[in-house]
Amino acid sequence: MNKLWSDTYTSWTLRIMRPDDANIAGNVHGGTILKMIEEAGAIISTRHCNSKSVERCFAALARVERTDFVSPMSIGEVAHVSAEITYTSKHSVEVQVNVMSENILTGEKRLTNRATLWYVAISLKNVEKILEVPPIHYEKQEQEEEGKKRYEAQKLERLETKHRADDVILPIVNPEPHTVGFSQSSLIHLVGPSECTPQGFVHGGVTMKLMDEVAGIVSARHCKTNIVTASVDAINFHQKIQKGSVLTVSGRLTFTSNKSMEVEVFVDVEPFVDDTQGKYRAVSAFFTFVSLSKEGKALPVPQVVLKSAEEKKRFEEGKGRYLQSKARRQTEMHSFTQK
Amino acid sequence: MNKLWSDTYTSWTLRIMRPDDANIAGNVHGGTILKMIEEAGAIISTRHCNSKSVERCFAALARVERTDFVSPMSIGEVAHVSAEITYTSKHSVEVQVNVMSENILTGEKRLTNRATLWYVAISLKNVEKILEVPPIHYEKQEQEEEGKKRYEAQKLERLETKHRADDVILPIVNPEPHTVGFSQSSLIHLVGPSECTPQGFVHGGVTMKLMDEVAGIVSARHCKTNIVTASVDAINFHQKIQKGSVLTVSGRLTFTSNKSMEVEVFVDVEPFVDDTQGKYRAVSAFFTFVSLSKEGKALPVPQVVLKSAEEKKRFEEGKGRYLQSKARRQTEMHSFTQK
Amino acid sequence: MNKLWSDTYTSWTLRIMRPDDANIAGNVHGGTILKMIEEAGAIISTRHCNSKSVERCFAALARVERTDFVSPMSIGEVAHVSAEITYTSKHSVEVQVNVMSENILTGEKRLTNRATLWYVAISLKNVEKILEVPPIHYEKQEQEEEGKKRYEAQKLERLETKHRADDVILPIVNPEPHTVGFSQSSLIHLVGPSECTPQGFVHGGVTMKLMDEVAGIVSARHCKTNIVTASVDAINFHQKIQKGSVLTVSGRLTFTSNKSMEVEVFVDVEPFVDDTQGKYRAVSAFFTFVSLSKEGKALPVPQVVLKSAEEKKRFEEGKGRYLQSKARRQTEMHSFTQK
Repeated sequence: MNKLWSDTYTSWTLRIMRPDDANIAGNVHGGTILKMIEEAGAIISTRHCNSKSVERCFAALARVERTDFVSPMSIGEVAHVSAEITYTSKHSVEVQVNVMSENILTGEKRLTNRATLWYVAISLKNVEKILEVPPIHYEKQEQEEEGKKRYEAQKLERLETKHRADDVILPIVNPEPHTVGFSQSSLIHLVGPSECTPQGFVHGGVTMKLMDEVAGIVSARHCKTNIVTASVDAINFHQKIQKGSVLTVSGRLTFTSNKSMEVEVFVDVEPFVDDTQGKYRAVSAFFTFVSLSKEGKALPVPQVVLKSAEEKKRFEEGKGRYLQSKARRQTEMHSFTQK
Repeated sequence: MNKLWSDTYTSWTLRIMRPDDANIAGNVHGGTILKMIEEAGAIISTRHCNSKSVERCFAALARVERTDFVSPMSIGEVAHVSAEITYTSKHSVEVQVNVMSENILTGEKRLTNRATLWYVAISLKNVEKILEVPPIHYEKQEQEEEGKKRYEAQKLERLETKHRADDVILPIVNPEPHTVGFSQSSLIHLVGPSECTPQGFVHGGVTMKLMDEVAGIVSARHCKTNIVTASVDAINFHQKIQKGSVLTVSGRLTFTSNKSMEVEVFVDVEPFVDDTQGKYRAVSAFFTFVSLSKEGKALPVPQVVLKSAEEKKRFEEGKGRYLQSKARRQTEMHSFTQK
Repeated sequence: MNKLWSDTYTSWTLRIMRPDDANIAGNVHGGTILKMIEEAGAIISTRHCNSKSVERCFAALARVERTDFVSPMSIGEVAHVSAEITYTSKHSVEVQVNVMSENILTGEKRLTNRATLWYVAISLKNVEKILEVPPIHYEKQEQEEEGKKRYEAQKLERLETKHRADDVILPIVNPEPHTVGFSQSSLIHLVGPSECTPQGFVHGGVTMKLMDEVAGIVSARHCKTNIVTASVDAINFHQKIQKGSVLTVSGRLTFTSNKSMEVEVFVDVEPFVDDTQGKYRAVSAFFTFVSLSKEGKALPVPQVVLKSAEEKKRFEEGKGRYLQSKARRQTEMHSFTQK
């Protein structure tokens, strides 16, 4: 902690969790946590990008790596969000954010979440211009090399992301319980001024919070129990969203394992102010939810009933992601116990 | 100052309008104003219903009469909301609320809105029990007689309200511009604790704000300009909505005149907590919007393109409401100039 | 009702307290109350300063006098905030604000808080220019004389305030329980548009609410019980804070009596938008908290463990403030019982 305080590349904040941050069972929404993470990331990277540049800029969220919610947080607990710049390329900043939850009455602290975010520096004078990022100094050379590997890997993955903007969620009349059509959900949201940066663009964290909200409603409709966010797959932000836009956020179930549900979420944007641009897909991502008993234990989840070839294909893809992340978690555990 | 405290039947409040209360053109949302009105009404009627009763109760919104938004309010202005109890029947309270907007820089004050709300007293011990309301004292007997007429009229209208709970808004694929299908919109909203009374029921004002938001998005999608709420038809609240419910708020264009659009809005409730009850329609109402130029003048509105017999029927009904309210406004103006 | 409209020097508002306004024990945060007080003060003084001036202006908070929280407020209660202009000097306005809490179920009303705020009039055209304030009329000459005394006293105190901007809160690794390092806390906050005046400066009330939040976390960490704000020492606002700034709000324990904790809070500002100015300290103040049992009785507080000469010095200064305010309360009580 001492290092963090004295170091320019780190930042530290805390906030009490309030009733509106949580569901009625008292579990803080994953979206609330994602929003705090992104705010911390935006502050530290904006500060860094302005530290040496001659041209003023702000940091815009480009990507969030896959992240797991390790343990649920409750109302009245204090969230500690610490952010650290861990790598810079010519035009982007990598920020690692840790969230701890502290019960200030018992003093107990737990790790809630660990996330990696990528930002780019946008000129304040010309929001179409991407500026160069001042390099950071690494204590050890291997830190730079590992960062470079992460940078290259995410760049590749970003390129691979196909944005299926034509893939819309069509409504189904009188759907059967546990089908995809039964739980699919959609909300519209008019972006308000306090959800935007001073430059008039929606904070990445606001978008993630809405996505988590829709994914949560899909999950709750499917299993009709208390649900919490377990993990979020990598999210790429391909376009900035302007103040005054109307967002349509839609979600549908893609995969169920014994104890988890995967929901695909789309964000489509109608820019009312700038009518030179039509409706476009800004973001899409996969959220995984689990169902919790009153004692906080994971409950079995009803299996999704598949109706079309498309749904079956998406289920198989979801199964692939599920098995991959399960394998990765086991490797991490293994390497951890080896140390 | 002492006087206000001793006067049981009136109440007074003020609040600065902020960016989040308004659209990007700076006009305060009609929904923000409806929410303030309802809060003032709930405070004064809860206070009155508890003033003499032996059994503790809270006041639940049962109905809002048709109300016009006389002039738009802007960011930075101060809203003055004054509420007065004007009639009591055995089980209900009539509250009249005036909203004035004050420009504190120039000192200019204008009437923004005048609304009439009906509340019923619900027992705190048993929320299914409606309690008796203490009678108020009238300065003149004709006040009581006129109040009784209003009470009887709204009772009749309430009974007449057909809740078309089976009338759902079905989506249309690739709709043409200016059709009903093109602008129809729907949002889902998870009710949070701060939107509820301490007894765990959604404030009527919260529901009206969501309804205004959906109706505004429908209008903006139809005419693609800056729009403001011009009036809201009578709204009946048939059922209380519990904390933790998911609301689906849907809106569709029913009628366009030269310079106004009428939007029908439904609120459907899924009670996640109490699973003994299925999805139900809680509220429905008609909102009228106008389109404003940058100078604040009403602009012509594109005519709605009707596609089905149902849409044509709803258009004719909307036209009826439009002509009726136009005639009523002229009568009011006439009686006003006669005085 | 008419009377209030004609009375230029008073203002009146009310608001229901909601779950997000309170801690998990249901006690409304001192910061919520300070924010309401400041909003009422800003409205009445902006209105007054524009009442006769030819140049449009807004009222900026310059100072809040020491204020005590007489009794805690709870969720569901209605806060009545009344504000009155009690003195004007050439360039400043003194506003006295009373907060009463009303239980609308029982009708019970209690005094919660009484505060005195000083505002200055800032030109809308040139925010560096301070304008003259129109004088108010006093019913009795002694009112003017007493006001002048208060004005001179606060002026002197303001000048005396040394802003120890170089005094930063350094982190301590693995601190022992009950030391200063154990409970010290810090948050960062990006100022959003809804927290600002239409002129783009942070409302004084927003800053005070953040300060109260940090002080509350420090106190809860120290004593690990339900805590409430008991009083706030005079706060001087030396510089306006602009929209888009990042605030770092830090707090540390300075003094403990048997049943109270004093926390010193700093607000440091990084102005991201305006690059002509570096990081600066905008505000600092002392908050006093007490620990409450479930029955609402004050509990003993663990004594702070002092580790350095600096901490001991600050403890002695805190003790001085504690004894002084204790003496003042006794004098007030005495003069009250003499009447």
